[in-house]
Amino acid sequence: AIIVYRLPWTWKCSKLLMKFIHAGLNTIAMILAIVSMVAVFDFHNAKHIPNMYSLHSWIGLTAVIFYSLQLFLGFAVFLLPFAPVHLRVALMPIHVYSGLTIFATVIATALMGITEKLIFALKNPAYSASPPEATLVNCLGLLLVIFGSLILWMASRPHWKRPPAENAKILRPIGATAEGTEVESTMTNSSNADKSDLRSNTEAARKQNIKFDEAGQRSTM
Amino acid sequence: AIIVYRLPWTWKCSKLLMKFIHAGLNTIAMILAIVSMVAVFDFHNAKHIPNMYSLHSWIGLTAVIFYSLQLFLGFAVFLLPFAPVHLRVALMPIHVYSGLTIFATVIATALMGITEKLIFALKNPAYSASPPEATLVNCLGLLLVIFGSLILWMASRPHWKRPPAENAKILRPIGATAEGTEVESTMTNSSNADKSDLRSNTEAARKQNIKFDEAGQRSTM
Repeated sequence: AIIVYRLPWTWKCSKLLMKFIHAGLNTIAMILAIVSMVAVFDFHNAKHIPNMYSLHSWIGLTAVIFYSLQLFLGFAVFLLPFAPVHLRVALMPIHVYSGLTIFATVIATALMGITEKLIFALKNPAYSASPPEATLVNCLGLLLVIFGSLILWMASRPHWKRPPAENAKILRPIGATAEGTEVESTMTNSSNADKSDLRSNTEAARKQNIKFDEAGQRSTM
Repeated sequence: AIIVYRLPWTWKCSKLLMKFIHAGLNTIAMILAIVSMVAVFDFHNAKHIPNMYSLHSWIGLTAVIFYSLQLFLGFAVFLLPFAPVHLRVALMPIHVYSGLTIFATVIATALMGITEKLIFALKNPAYSASPPEATLVNCLGLLLVIFGSLILWMASRPHWKRPPAENAKILRPIGATAEGTEVESTMTNSSNADKSDLRSNTEAARKQNIKFDEAGQRSTM
């Protein structure tokens, strides 16, 4: 879900479709997280293991709570068409930062969970005797770290961002500005105004665009 | 060490001094990491515990190896005055990314280590009975996550970056350009040329500066 906006083939999609893919994948992940949490609590209760005692559980629950907040706020501010552009501009860097931080925290939580599970599950031979299962699951943990690093790399490369004027370029030959507004129903009037600025090639408009780009405005249009 | 370049009071230091602080703090951290690794191996050997069997150790050793590479490359490319500017420009985003990724990985490694230690050390009462030690150390783990998040926030805010023309502004009233070169001995001639571009206010120079800024050139001067 994080790298939806970083895949060149999605740049051909409308911005709204990309948002729907991003929100949809995150919603699926949220549902899976809730299902797995219920499963963990049921498992603990059935085996008479205490709940929420480990650092893994504390950080994991914190991450899930922040993730649900992130999902709710993202939905309310960026997907619904009601939020004003200045709010989107202000919240976008926070949304991006907290999304990536939650992602990294979830990977750390998974690594702690793997460590716990290996210690608890491997008894004969023990984890410290490095049986094949231990080596296999350690490799899985390493792959998780590599996966996380790659996603963070893709998400943080400025030239992997969706080109800012892409929509304007694509929509220009088709016809009126109204079409753009129709397709991208989450855009507000002021972001349209910003778009027209993009087309007029004055120095002031260029400055404005650079400023907006720096503030992360690009992603809120 | 990561946030040296993000503290407003260091913006008054010369760039070279900031680099020395950054490199110095990282060197101290590297020495401490090596000392602690030797201590761990000694402890394991003395207690007849196998070495390098856990996911914590695998990821930890990987992080330390990448950290030493990062330190060596950073020293060779950014601190020594021999590397050409285009190499610095190309490597700076990688240096920043890998620094932050290593930092996050180290925090994840610490969390795994805390988890392991709590499981192994707390036996009566066990970790799962949530004795006060468990709660205390869990809080320490949470604080580690909060610390990591704050550092990543500070490091990734664009407006917390050192202002690009700061040096030029400060050095201007003092006198000749030569002074700047003297103070900042790691700068090459071409980065000086770029500085004069900064002063000439033509459209081409502005474009150039924006392009360089995007490539992370700002931090290589």
